[in-house]
Amino acid sequence: MPFTNLKEQEKEQRRELILSAAEKMFFSRGYDNVSMDDIASEIGLNKATLYLYFKNKESLFFAVVLRGALILNAMIKERIKKCNSGMEIIDAIGITYFDFVEKHPDYSRAYLYFRSDRFSIENNGDLCDDAKRVLELRNEEFAIVCKAIESGMEEGMIRPDLDPIEVTVFLTLILKTLTEMRPSFKKVLEDRRITPNQFFKDVAGLVHHMLANTDKKDGKF
Amino acid sequence: MPFTNLKEQEKEQRRELILSAAEKMFFSRGYDNVSMDDIASEIGLNKATLYLYFKNKESLFFAVVLRGALILNAMIKERIKKCNSGMEIIDAIGITYFDFVEKHPDYSRAYLYFRSDRFSIENNGDLCDDAKRVLELRNEEFAIVCKAIESGMEEGMIRPDLDPIEVTVFLTLILKTLTEMRPSFKKVLEDRRITPNQFFKDVAGLVHHMLANTDKKDGKF
Repeated sequence: MPFTNLKEQEKEQRRELILSAAEKMFFSRGYDNVSMDDIASEIGLNKATLYLYFKNKESLFFAVVLRGALILNAMIKERIKKCNSGMEIIDAIGITYFDFVEKHPDYSRAYLYFRSDRFSIENNGDLCDDAKRVLELRNEEFAIVCKAIESGMEEGMIRPDLDPIEVTVFLTLILKTLTEMRPSFKKVLEDRRITPNQFFKDVAGLVHHMLANTDKKDGKF
Repeated sequence: MPFTNLKEQEKEQRRELILSAAEKMFFSRGYDNVSMDDIASEIGLNKATLYLYFKNKESLFFAVVLRGALILNAMIKERIKKCNSGMEIIDAIGITYFDFVEKHPDYSRAYLYFRSDRFSIENNGDLCDDAKRVLELRNEEFAIVCKAIESGMEEGMIRPDLDPIEVTVFLTLILKTLTEMRPSFKKVLEDRRITPNQFFKDVAGLVHHMLANTDKKDGKF
């Protein structure tokens, strides 16, 4: 291996180490309670070196958010491989998303914070590459859902009177609101012995019913 | 009119004047950018007098939120008077809520802020009466929706396999997420020539379909 490659590899490894340390701190203390000084001293790096890898705390956080977004994206792509229809893809994406939220609550929260007013992502003309990549991944997922609805309509399983893009916006809003559900609602469900997991599944069932083409007479619905 | 009553009345009028001035300032500048000093000087009251009416800025804000909550509650109750079935009530409440958001965007935003992490309403054991009343009104509306679903199930128009409380939680989450929709989604819809108003109506239609008992054979669906 040429020396330059080795150096590149070392740099990449170090970047990942920094990122993992920062991630741990963001998740345990909260983004706003961690400073670049804290991160540097936690890793035992001087701050100048830290800044060689990440230009500021924000870009470190966005890199953490990207880690989560890549995991979700990979989970979705893996899951829909097995699907044979548009409707199956819609069902599968809902379930996968909830799996992700359950398995990676910290990444889910980080993503919500990333999209909150705290960062004004939507009005930022100067986003770093990692943040742009996160948005690209989400757009990709939006397109997958949209295409699945179109396929479902062609296949006769999804109502033909819907606007695929409008429905995709609505489904995305549903996923978002489920992720940030208030404790008081969780409590109401808990009192009914409905676990978050059960609630997610029931919502997926409701959404299925909402989209299902009930005019179809093949007995499938 | 006895003198004490007159005094009470004057006090109440003054309270309303203060509230209206504070509301205007909160809505135009944002809650966090307005101080009790600003409010006092805007009204031309000294701060000590202001504090006789409201113990702090938070309680002033909660009184503003209550104004909005009372408007919404009255709109809902007026609207459902004309309804003849559970399903009609569900449809009517959705439409009324969207009417409210369109007509009173400032009150809608104020309510969202009231329920955000900014105020930790859920963990506050020492809520003032106005804040408690806001929560009571919301609980009342939750109960109306829940009862409407139960009636709709009895009437055979809403699917019998649903849990009314679970569905009400889901519907409440949908209303919430529509109120705080991101500009980027509004843009996506706009590009499809779908106005926010049309989107709200279409969502109400989707929700109707989601709940509708399609096994019913009276040709109504």
